[in-house]
Amino acid sequence: MKIDGKHYRTIWPVADGAVVVEVIDQTKLPHKFETKRLATLDEAAHAIKAMIVRGAPLIGATAAYGMAIALAADPSDVAMNAAYDKLAATRPTAINLRWALDRVRSAVAPLAPGARAKVAWVLAAGICDEDVSICEAIGEQGLKLIEAAFAKKGGKGAVNILTHCNAGWLATVDWGTAIAPIYKAFDKGIPVHVWVDETRPRNQGASLTAFELGRHGVPHHIVADNSGGHLMQHGLVDLCIVGTDRVTARGDVCNKIGTYLKALAAHDNGVPFYVALPSPTIDWTVVDGVKEIPIEERSSLEVTRIAGRLADGSVVEVDIAAPGSPARNDAFDVTPARLVTALITERGVCPATRDGLLGLFPEAKTRAAGE
Amino acid sequence: MKIDGKHYRTIWPVADGAVVVEVIDQTKLPHKFETKRLATLDEAAHAIKAMIVRGAPLIGATAAYGMAIALAADPSDVAMNAAYDKLAATRPTAINLRWALDRVRSAVAPLAPGARAKVAWVLAAGICDEDVSICEAIGEQGLKLIEAAFAKKGGKGAVNILTHCNAGWLATVDWGTAIAPIYKAFDKGIPVHVWVDETRPRNQGASLTAFELGRHGVPHHIVADNSGGHLMQHGLVDLCIVGTDRVTARGDVCNKIGTYLKALAAHDNGVPFYVALPSPTIDWTVVDGVKEIPIEERSSLEVTRIAGRLADGSVVEVDIAAPGSPARNDAFDVTPARLVTALITERGVCPATRDGLLGLFPEAKTRAAGE
Repeated sequence: MKIDGKHYRTIWPVADGAVVVEVIDQTKLPHKFETKRLATLDEAAHAIKAMIVRGAPLIGATAAYGMAIALAADPSDVAMNAAYDKLAATRPTAINLRWALDRVRSAVAPLAPGARAKVAWVLAAGICDEDVSICEAIGEQGLKLIEAAFAKKGGKGAVNILTHCNAGWLATVDWGTAIAPIYKAFDKGIPVHVWVDETRPRNQGASLTAFELGRHGVPHHIVADNSGGHLMQHGLVDLCIVGTDRVTARGDVCNKIGTYLKALAAHDNGVPFYVALPSPTIDWTVVDGVKEIPIEERSSLEVTRIAGRLADGSVVEVDIAAPGSPARNDAFDVTPARLVTALITERGVCPATRDGLLGLFPEAKTRAAGE
Repeated sequence: MKIDGKHYRTIWPVADGAVVVEVIDQTKLPHKFETKRLATLDEAAHAIKAMIVRGAPLIGATAAYGMAIALAADPSDVAMNAAYDKLAATRPTAINLRWALDRVRSAVAPLAPGARAKVAWVLAAGICDEDVSICEAIGEQGLKLIEAAFAKKGGKGAVNILTHCNAGWLATVDWGTAIAPIYKAFDKGIPVHVWVDETRPRNQGASLTAFELGRHGVPHHIVADNSGGHLMQHGLVDLCIVGTDRVTARGDVCNKIGTYLKALAAHDNGVPFYVALPSPTIDWTVVDGVKEIPIEERSSLEVTRIAGRLADGSVVEVDIAAPGSPARNDAFDVTPARLVTALITERGVCPATRDGLLGLFPEAKTRAAGE
């Protein structure tokens, strides 16, 4: 998508021949737009761990490039496996991370060490292109739901869509997942308005989703995470669309902390609650998301300290909580499938059930848990 | 309660004879502890409007003193009614505000103008003392629920209590409403641990509740407002207690935005959800809170800008959202009575129903709406 008229992806090779990629430094947004080069395995791992890149698909793409970069430096089995382990450990919850790493390693492991780096590099680029295609397809599938919501309103007023966290193009290589249908609808001239959950503690909604919607011209308002229930009670939300970091074989949705609360409110108010996902996000080995998915606990400083702009434009970090009070920071929660109206995938829209998912992805039948 | 070993109320007369009160400036907490003198009607109205004082009971007490201060300057009918209107307009949602103003005006209106100020002053002091008694009684009533929760755990581990916003002693004259039972339990030696919702956008949880719990020594963790559902899913919350700005005759609860989401999560996970209230908070004229209670919409700057401490201890305001993105800031929401396990009042604990409330407050039968 575009920033100040220039088309960007979130990750790209810097030049032919150089095994170096460049990414948008998302820790600097929305205050500053800066890019960062990743030329070593450590830099790639740090970029994921420090959330310079974030969002399940972009994490996967970065990990794939990280493998290629590591293999260019040392293509041995030992180095390859060490790179895999280092990258896999950066974000334990993201299923795309492991998926991308497995894909690269299984492709290059049978090759002679000298051939590995180049194949990994091409594969990483292919993973990026594939993600763009998948996200655009999710956009087309979700567009139908927004069109239906607009028709339900008699074609009058804007379709009010609530989203949580950032599942826009900044979370993927391009287009986004949850926001892709919104871009498709907006570009087609359907009036849309987005309620952007701030998404504490890292504020990806207020920082990233609002940033990318604003630069694209999509009408939106930032709201505190506390607001969604009230907005729904008063008929101000036509549908919710969120992304996800992992969907289980029966349709439980692991996503940014707070998603579950919005799903409860949507259910209580008869508001459709959709989850957009590229199919690599499905973890067919897991059934009960609440019981089985380990939830990453992040630094309490993310809760008690925040970055912002002073009046002179400089960016500083400030402590916002009572001095000495401890904080706890669970990064994700799990929304049970019963609260999800439907899943939006690149192949179509399906119920959040095992049968629904297998209807779209029959090839997973043999490996899907929960028979 | 105590701050650094010294006992405070949140509002007190500065000296015998002077018609001036002093309050803790809650906009400066938790970064600085400062007090502020209110010597004119305008200062009293500003203190309420700017949330130097906040919390329904403290707003009522401040409004009562505001009437006394105004009458000392000009005891005429015109000035009395103008003071009433000015103070009533400061916070439209708080029922205690109007209750306190009505109480003062109806008491002094029949008097000769020259006698009004002194009677109003004594009445305001009485409203404060009454609030302290009411809050302590709420603490005793709620203590029984915490004791029951501790017994249910076999007397092992801490009782984990989630609260939203600040309904502690800083929101009242002393003791608090939702936090009063926690202080009672803690002082009695029952192990308690409090999950303190940050409470965006004004962060009263992270700033005020964490501050007062910390100074009293009560174990607690600040959590993002998004966290409560996840904590409940994993058995980490034994009960919720929140305060309220207005309870309807059937038990709908208007409270800080986001309360409804926590009530939904509590209901979904079988966690008791209690609301603590002094009886003046009951608005017997209103039945359906969602339909009938007007919700205050506050400045969007509360969402996009935040105050915090720099490393050198100085306090600054920073902009945290994407530049140019608009925000919406609804200050309260309404939790339907069906999601409330029970109401904790100074007279006892009752179901969140008309019959439940009238069982404790039979004298309201003739004026309670919703027969």
